[in-house]
Amino acid sequence: MRILGIDPGTATSGYGIIDVDNGAAGVVGWGLLETEKNGFTEKRLESIFKQTAEIIKKYHPDIFAIEKIFFAANAKTAIAVGQAQGVMLLAASKANIEVMEYAPGTIKKTVAGNGRAKKKDIQKAVRKILGNKVRSKAKEKTHFDNAADALAVALCHSLKGKGGENNG
Amino acid sequence: MRILGIDPGTATSGYGIIDVDNGAAGVVGWGLLETEKNGFTEKRLESIFKQTAEIIKKYHPDIFAIEKIFFAANAKTAIAVGQAQGVMLLAASKANIEVMEYAPGTIKKTVAGNGRAKKKDIQKAVRKILGNKVRSKAKEKTHFDNAADALAVALCHSLKGKGGENNG
Repeated sequence: MRILGIDPGTATSGYGIIDVDNGAAGVVGWGLLETEKNGFTEKRLESIFKQTAEIIKKYHPDIFAIEKIFFAANAKTAIAVGQAQGVMLLAASKANIEVMEYAPGTIKKTVAGNGRAKKKDIQKAVRKILGNKVRSKAKEKTHFDNAADALAVALCHSLKGKGGENNG
Repeated sequence: MRILGIDPGTATSGYGIIDVDNGAAGVVGWGLLETEKNGFTEKRLESIFKQTAEIIKKYHPDIFAIEKIFFAANAKTAIAVGQAQGVMLLAASKANIEVMEYAPGTIKKTVAGNGRAKKKDIQKAVRKILGNKVRSKAKEKTHFDNAADALAVALCHSLKGKGGENNG
């Protein structure tokens, strides 16, 4: 089973792809969906949609796992994150990929054993679970840390499986 | 100039189309973008995207005017409205239509003369500006009241024109 994990943000979102085989998870790739901060909103969203569709086309995930956000600094931020999520979910829907949503606390608890784990703890847990491949690749790709949250969403699904939360 | 106005919501969004010629505005159409409340989020978003793209294809608007939301009852609602906005804006971007965003207070003040106008005042102002065509059609189409806010967004753009707010 191949899982695409997404950590949605406003200007930048992280993504991570893992393969799970008999309970063992291996990393396939990770990166960032980046957009121009000062561009028109609709053009930024079109870029996020296209980048998401390209990742789906490249990796053919079976599951699209995304962080579910319940709170935000303010409504402006929540709207902006919601807009980005919207076009990502549309890309998943158009490709007929099953979408699973996980709350931040669920991801933290499942991956790092603590629902209030800090960013560094998540990065450490993700490296530990995914092993050497991540550690060696991380030397070259400094943005691993930014994508660690996305890999954590994918790992959360692999660990919780179908018994997790759906998005209905 | 043809303006498509959108009043974004969670399960239901209103839309309204007006033509503006030498400062005189006439109504072309209005309606609701409706989705199943209990469906999967990504399928609801795909439906909103398709409905928006169909309206654009049918009416060929020059301007896509949307209500800009700064506040919400809670982050969950803000995220849901943001998701719907996101796929609507994507439909506008893909069709290369210029997007303009107007704050609720700006729309109310421009259309009804009062930034804190109530829903009934907006409906009254929209009927007054758009004239008989709306009044007679409204007898048949009871959902006019729900689409009045969307027509108000379109009217707001026609009254403020390019001097209004952009979405950069």
